[in-house]
Parts: sequence; structure tokens; C-alpha cells
Amino acid sequence: MISCKIETVTFDDVSHMGVVLLTEKDGRRVLPVWVGLFEAQAILFRLQNSYFPRPLTHDLLKNCIERLNGQVEYILINRIENNTFYAQIHIKHNNNKIVIDSRPSDAIALAVRVETPIYVEEKLFETNGVDKEEFLKEQREKLYKLYLEATEEDEEKTKH
Amino acid sequence: MISCKIETVTFDDVSHMGVVLLTEKDGRRVLPVWVGLFEAQAILFRLQNSYFPRPLTHDLLKNCIERLNGQVEYILINRIENNTFYAQIHIKHNNNKIVIDSRPSDAIALAVRVETPIYVEEKLFETNGVDKEEFLKEQREKLYKLYLEATEEDEEKTKH
Repeated sequence: MISCKIETVTFDDVSHMGVVLLTEKDGRRVLPVWVGLFEAQAILFRLQNSYFPRPLTHDLLKNCIERLNGQVEYILINRIENNTFYAQIHIKHNNNKIVIDSRPSDAIALAVRVETPIYVEEKLFETNGVDKEEFLKEQREKLYKLYLEATEEDEEKTKH
Repeated sequence: MISCKIETVTFDDVSHMGVVLLTEKDGRRVLPVWVGLFEAQAILFRLQNSYFPRPLTHDLLKNCIERLNGQVEYILINRIENNTFYAQIHIKHNNNKIVIDSRPSDAIALAVRVETPIYVEEKLFETNGVDKEEFLKEQREKLYKLYLEATEEDEEKTKH
């Protein structure tokens, strides 16, 4: 298990999804995890310390676990199957250990709220990890391409 | 407390929000509860028995509560303040009763998953309840107005 931190959360304009970029601590590789837009927002809100007067869904999840005497120990992104990442939430409950199946997005949105470690199985970095600088460069190029396309479209419109 | 059922979930094109319409059992009044689009979807998916291979956020919430020996007894929409509805999730846990503060949307999305009663405080129907037929008529008129506007816009575009 590799301990990871969230490098950044970006939005992929091609797939219309969010991307959570997990960096291995003391490493150069990142693991891009595609997540729904809503879940990306839920992660970002917490990272940016955005304040909401009412509990959002993942705040409610945190509150329920804590009120039922559960203590989230860590989350683990443990496997990939048909391009889908799987995760587990590891909870301590009255001296028992409970493992709950979760999408990585929900597990990460919970982890940032309970301030618990985020782990990734080593093999996932081997199969899906990418060089951090390479990935960020690619993202910038994609954005630049979209910008050029949008500019061309604007010019077309002005002509008519 | 009035026992309610979900009459329908619609989308309000003016506010760009979802509306959960709660009907009092054996009554003619409905209580429209405005909710986020994501939460409206989460409620609809369950009502339509949509199948997803991975647990959605409210499925995860249900799983966590159940795995921690919690049993949702009912949810209650109990008050309104500054146009915001408040709700509570009532959970039985090892012979204790736990009440957890929630947005109505999350509470309802959970209730439809654990098949638990949805209650609304009587006073909310008095202040915010509306006649069911009146409300549905208004919604239809709004939709028709939007349809006319869209048709006019299309005609304008065709002219140019």
C-alpha cells in the first residue's frame, strides 16, 4: 500500500468528468482517478475549506459514521476492473474492523473530511501510474487545443 | 407528524433545481421541497429501480449505517428557516435512538433506499403546503411557457 496525497482536482473537458490526481508520497508518479463532477466538487469544496450552512452528502456520511461509533482508519483504492477503480473504507467499530466497498470518489470525499490517510495498492501505480510532469503537460496541451478551437469558432461567428 | 409519500420528482426549469413533491397520505395537499439536481437524481434513480454496478453515494450511506448496526426508523422534515427546510434521520442503534441533522434531499434519498417512512411536521403543511392539482397545473403552465419561448427562439434563428 502506498500512502498518497491529493495533488490536485481538475476537470477533463473531453470526458466531462473530474480527475483526482493522487501523488505517491516521496515519488514522481501520479495516479489519475476519473470521478463524477458532483464527487469532484465534494472533494474540492473540502480542500478549499468552502463553508456551507447545511451538511452536504459526504458531511452527512461522516456524521452518521461518527455518531454510530465508527472511526474511519483509512481508505484504500485497491483494484481496477474494466477501467473502473474500486475502493474500500476501513472503519474501526467497537474493536472490530469493518471494510466497506465504495467508489474511490466517495471514499476520497470522506477521507478529506475525516482527515484520514489515502492508500493505493502498489500494483495500480504500476499499471495506471503516470509521470506527474508528463500528465500535467498533457492536460495543459488539451486545454490549449480547446482554447484554439473556441477561438476559431468565435472567429467563424464574427465572419457571418 | 404527517406520514407522506413521494408524489413525483420534477425539475424546475426556472430555478434549475429538482422538486420533490410530498403528498400527505389521505390528503389533497402537497409539500414541494426544492433540492439540488444531483440529489433529485439520486432519489429518482431509486424510485425507477435504475441499476448501477457500483454503489452511489446514498447507497454507500445506507451500507455504512447498516454495517455499523444502525437501523433507520424514519426520516422527518421538521422545520423551515429562511426558506430552507431542515430534516432529521432517526436511527436505532443498540437500543439507543440517534437523531442526525440532514438536508431533506439526503434524508429522502436515504429513506427510499431503506424503505422507511417519510414524515413531515404538520405545521409545514400549514405554512408551505399547496393544493396538489393547483401545483401540478402551475408546473404544466411553466413548461408550456418555456416551450413557447424555445419555439419562438427557433423561429428567430430560422429567419436569419
